[in-house]
Amino acid sequence: MDAGNITIYDAAKKGDFGLVKWIVEYSRSSLNEYAKGHRTALHFAAMSGNLQMFKYLTERCGLDPLKGDINLVTPWDIVHDIAENGLKSKYAVKGSICNSEHKEIEQYLEKRYSHSYYDFYRNPIRAGFFPDPSICRVGDDYYMVNSSFVFFPCIPISHSKDLIHWEIIGHAITNPKWAYLDELEGGRGYWAPDISFYEGRFYITATYRLNDVGPVYRRQIVVSSERPEGPYSEPVFIDEDGIDPSIFNDDDGRRYMLLNRGARIFEISKDATKKISKPQLLFYGDNKRAPEGPHLYKKDGYYYLLEAEGGTGPGHMVTVSRSRELLGVYEPCPYNPIMRQKDPDALIQRCGHGDMVETPDGRWYMVYLCGRKIGDGYSILGRETAIDPVTWTADGWPIVNDLKGPSTMQVKPYPDLADFAMLHDIHSKIDKEKCDELLEPEEESKDYISPCGLPLDYMTPRPFEEGDVSFDKGNSFVIKGSKAPISSVDSRNLVLRRQTSFSFEYVADMEIPELSEGQHAGISGYYDENTFVLFGLMKKNGKLYVFSQEHIGEEDKWIFSDEPIEYDEETIRFSMNTDYLKRTLSYELISKGSKRRSEDDPGSVIFATLPDVYYLCDEGYNKGKRFTGALVGMYAYSGDEDLLSVKFRNCNYIDI
Amino acid sequence: MDAGNITIYDAAKKGDFGLVKWIVEYSRSSLNEYAKGHRTALHFAAMSGNLQMFKYLTERCGLDPLKGDINLVTPWDIVHDIAENGLKSKYAVKGSICNSEHKEIEQYLEKRYSHSYYDFYRNPIRAGFFPDPSICRVGDDYYMVNSSFVFFPCIPISHSKDLIHWEIIGHAITNPKWAYLDELEGGRGYWAPDISFYEGRFYITATYRLNDVGPVYRRQIVVSSERPEGPYSEPVFIDEDGIDPSIFNDDDGRRYMLLNRGARIFEISKDATKKISKPQLLFYGDNKRAPEGPHLYKKDGYYYLLEAEGGTGPGHMVTVSRSRELLGVYEPCPYNPIMRQKDPDALIQRCGHGDMVETPDGRWYMVYLCGRKIGDGYSILGRETAIDPVTWTADGWPIVNDLKGPSTMQVKPYPDLADFAMLHDIHSKIDKEKCDELLEPEEESKDYISPCGLPLDYMTPRPFEEGDVSFDKGNSFVIKGSKAPISSVDSRNLVLRRQTSFSFEYVADMEIPELSEGQHAGISGYYDENTFVLFGLMKKNGKLYVFSQEHIGEEDKWIFSDEPIEYDEETIRFSMNTDYLKRTLSYELISKGSKRRSEDDPGSVIFATLPDVYYLCDEGYNKGKRFTGALVGMYAYSGDEDLLSVKFRNCNYIDI
Repeated sequence: MDAGNITIYDAAKKGDFGLVKWIVEYSRSSLNEYAKGHRTALHFAAMSGNLQMFKYLTERCGLDPLKGDINLVTPWDIVHDIAENGLKSKYAVKGSICNSEHKEIEQYLEKRYSHSYYDFYRNPIRAGFFPDPSICRVGDDYYMVNSSFVFFPCIPISHSKDLIHWEIIGHAITNPKWAYLDELEGGRGYWAPDISFYEGRFYITATYRLNDVGPVYRRQIVVSSERPEGPYSEPVFIDEDGIDPSIFNDDDGRRYMLLNRGARIFEISKDATKKISKPQLLFYGDNKRAPEGPHLYKKDGYYYLLEAEGGTGPGHMVTVSRSRELLGVYEPCPYNPIMRQKDPDALIQRCGHGDMVETPDGRWYMVYLCGRKIGDGYSILGRETAIDPVTWTADGWPIVNDLKGPSTMQVKPYPDLADFAMLHDIHSKIDKEKCDELLEPEEESKDYISPCGLPLDYMTPRPFEEGDVSFDKGNSFVIKGSKAPISSVDSRNLVLRRQTSFSFEYVADMEIPELSEGQHAGISGYYDENTFVLFGLMKKNGKLYVFSQEHIGEEDKWIFSDEPIEYDEETIRFSMNTDYLKRTLSYELISKGSKRRSEDDPGSVIFATLPDVYYLCDEGYNKGKRFTGALVGMYAYSGDEDLLSVKFRNCNYIDI
Repeated sequence: MDAGNITIYDAAKKGDFGLVKWIVEYSRSSLNEYAKGHRTALHFAAMSGNLQMFKYLTERCGLDPLKGDINLVTPWDIVHDIAENGLKSKYAVKGSICNSEHKEIEQYLEKRYSHSYYDFYRNPIRAGFFPDPSICRVGDDYYMVNSSFVFFPCIPISHSKDLIHWEIIGHAITNPKWAYLDELEGGRGYWAPDISFYEGRFYITATYRLNDVGPVYRRQIVVSSERPEGPYSEPVFIDEDGIDPSIFNDDDGRRYMLLNRGARIFEISKDATKKISKPQLLFYGDNKRAPEGPHLYKKDGYYYLLEAEGGTGPGHMVTVSRSRELLGVYEPCPYNPIMRQKDPDALIQRCGHGDMVETPDGRWYMVYLCGRKIGDGYSILGRETAIDPVTWTADGWPIVNDLKGPSTMQVKPYPDLADFAMLHDIHSKIDKEKCDELLEPEEESKDYISPCGLPLDYMTPRPFEEGDVSFDKGNSFVIKGSKAPISSVDSRNLVLRRQTSFSFEYVADMEIPELSEGQHAGISGYYDENTFVLFGLMKKNGKLYVFSQEHIGEEDKWIFSDEPIEYDEETIRFSMNTDYLKRTLSYELISKGSKRRSEDDPGSVIFATLPDVYYLCDEGYNKGKRFTGALVGMYAYSGDEDLLSVKFRNCNYIDI
């Protein structure tokens, strides 16, 4: 967009309202275009601080003060930052006078939205591998489940009081004997669970997705418990093909399971363990590409049927239809899709697979999955969970975020609950520290450990055997070496957590173990058995080398340290520093008492820089089912012969 | 979409409901796909005549019985054709038993839509070069105007009683002295007119688009008349930059003009001849790409602002916003775009530039432009006019055709008026014949001739001088030769009419004139001075040759007959037979009394086949403004020196 040589962005940044008006009203430019970094003219007007221009671009041109740029920075963020920090703000325009005008703009925005800047949350609310959310409410408590695929414990269950801050409280399957994941390839296992509450019990159903061998690819499981965190009952299998099961409890006490393709329905027994009617198609879907994720809701005499359509990629969306009778003809909503990212260049993409929940005071929200696409279209954080408000039109249709797609900034469902709820946010380091200070010690230990022995935000690809992995205070893990290579579905005992940010450092201190020839251990960036990076110590020709291995399907890229490592150190500190797709691998040798050996000790050494770990993204490799997201953690490889047990301490994920 | 080797289309055509169900519910196929010719499974189910399968695909799968294939044939069309014609129908499946099931399906459809098959109309309602429609109603009569660009007479005004059948009744400018088109390149001239009615007078405003030289590119004109067909007043110019003016008359008697970009507004004098306030931006637009075509409506306390956005190509759309106050802040409709073709492979594309009208009994309709894209994306019929019903949501927003995009088959606004209204359809040959039978002779002659002397559906590129073109009974024209080549903006006297169908024959009998060296005359397929085809007789080396010339910018492709034509014939019959982009040129020499000279006379001779006249399409050449559509008609070229006057008889456009 330009007028001669000057763009509207330049003019807006300079605060030249007359020129901005001329460009808008008389030039051939169009306001649907973006500056670098996906910024609109309103981002630049926010920098200059011209209230009249800001209002004109907002009210007359319809530019959105809450729309994020490629880093999800909104015009309001810029206004707020300058109002707070004046010329010290990184957004401040050099030579501009003061921040009083920015304060005026902030007042205008507070009035426009009837909320202060601090009353807003940001999407996604759950960063990293939290796909296929399903939600239910019991009293004032909200519960959510997400897919876990081949990872163990299976199907994380999370809790929230305010719909924004969530903590994992348990898993649907924590008994390794009930997981049945041993043979499954990455990306199989437990897909798209659903959580519901019926006569005092929580029910979780999910698809159990097998390998593509044999006659059956898909079965459905159901587990239940009186307590949301579990323990849950042994899974029962319902043999009906399809994915994305959900349980709908009708007013008359009858219970139904919904399944794709489209929305097929059949009745199930009161205890949800048996199929007791033949499946029939309720409605295929409105968009009709890959219709899945059916959920039913009853409201004001209508059955509302939510579906995910378009496939779980860039064209993902949520549609709704309704009928007066459960098995009646479903009429699609004219406003479909009721959730879809319409802007192909926005950061938040792949929005779909929604589930709705009503607050005790009658407001509605939808959780849905999304993926933040960076660079060349890689969503390294996998499919995450976002939330947006649902409003009901006067003609009785639910629409999400006024059909604007995913919001960047949105008013919190419970702005007044925020401080309390933040105590339970285990995904933010700062909040965790607050939490640790405030929670009672016994509550802490109970809350953060799964019955399987792992901290609630850690997992392993497929179940480990009892005693193979143990966790202790100080973020310490003892991991038994895998007999099978990490590239095998038989590998075990990798202890991983979700990558939840684009830029972070993962650090772990490993007690240098006695390794036999060929054994190795260290930290890992992991997607599945086909694609991962290892950074560790290996015994080779009788000596210890620091090494890295990028494993991309059939291809391996190895790097070894030039010189072997001396045995007289007790501990090696591994660090994997991530900036988007770039990973910098460093290590530091630490002697007893963590003192440096001498003045010459270099401390931390950069071992290697991996420029592009695209293969840790959903889109980064074309083999198998890639629906999870990048993980990071520790591993040990022993091979068949020798026992190996490795101790890691101070395992920390630090956002940068 | 397939299950092994069988597609759902095969299964549906065979009437194998079980297999169809299996493919829908258990296979990985998706129902958003199409068979060849843009047919859905429902087209094939319509052929087989299985009522249960037809209902299942309609109700459970949401396939649309009214959705057209690439030829706009709908599943209902197929059902109806087989119900009427049984095995004689071209859609009937070989070996199928009878048509009783098809009659059952037709009954089902009649019940579903509460209308019989004959109560539906088809889009577009005005075929060929009828872009940028604007509509108004006075009493029971509807009036429409469309853009005419450099063609004369300027801005056709059409009339209808039923909103579906229209006839041109006059033009906004019929006086050549008031047209100011002499210097203008093709595609300039009168753009996007608007018609309104105020205190007993019809007002038409349009943009007068100049060449891209000098300081002013765009001015606005206004004409008015007490009678819809005219004559209209001499145009007054309002000097404000922008395109797509419309006049809005507020309740308080004040009058306003709206103009792009976006929707800018200024007050005009009571007689609509003067701008009396400064323009200001009401609202830029919701989509924000190329916002134009602003129209205001007042209803139930709101000002509704309609805009065309996305540019007049494949991304075209209609959006709406509203405000309680005329100059207040306009809130965009959450359901925007309220009209857009979402299916990129459908025949009808480019839907936008809408204008709404209310019927006397409170129903609403929107006329809008569209383009039918054939082959590689060429819309040879230019931008046409379609109509669809507007409904108002419970929260007070107008939505068009339930947000489904353009309809193929839609219930007529006045199903009971159809027979009368069809009398006035001048675009259907059959209807025209009915019309000729029924109309009184004097009414006919009055109705079909413009004050400029041409039949109402004929035009010339830029005005002709008085006496240069005359029309007589028997579809006869006498045309004076142009002094300038047809490829010049100075060429004159080409007499053309809209191409209104993909397949037609244009035939004209030319009395063989006395030609001087280099002179030529005949028929033409015409887009503008840059792109046309001529098919005629030329004097060359003292002899008469049949020739064709394809003129594509700087390139000319000539074909001449091997042998000269003998002078002893009185008449040559030219025929241009069109099948999509293919044109077959034929001629026949006809002696006095139309008798063949001898048994050896071959009659009609195919002269040449032009395989691809893409250059007659909007998209077919990249020079100048290409917003019109293909035309066909007669021309004569005299050159500077010699006078030439050519008589054409029996000039007929025949749909095939």
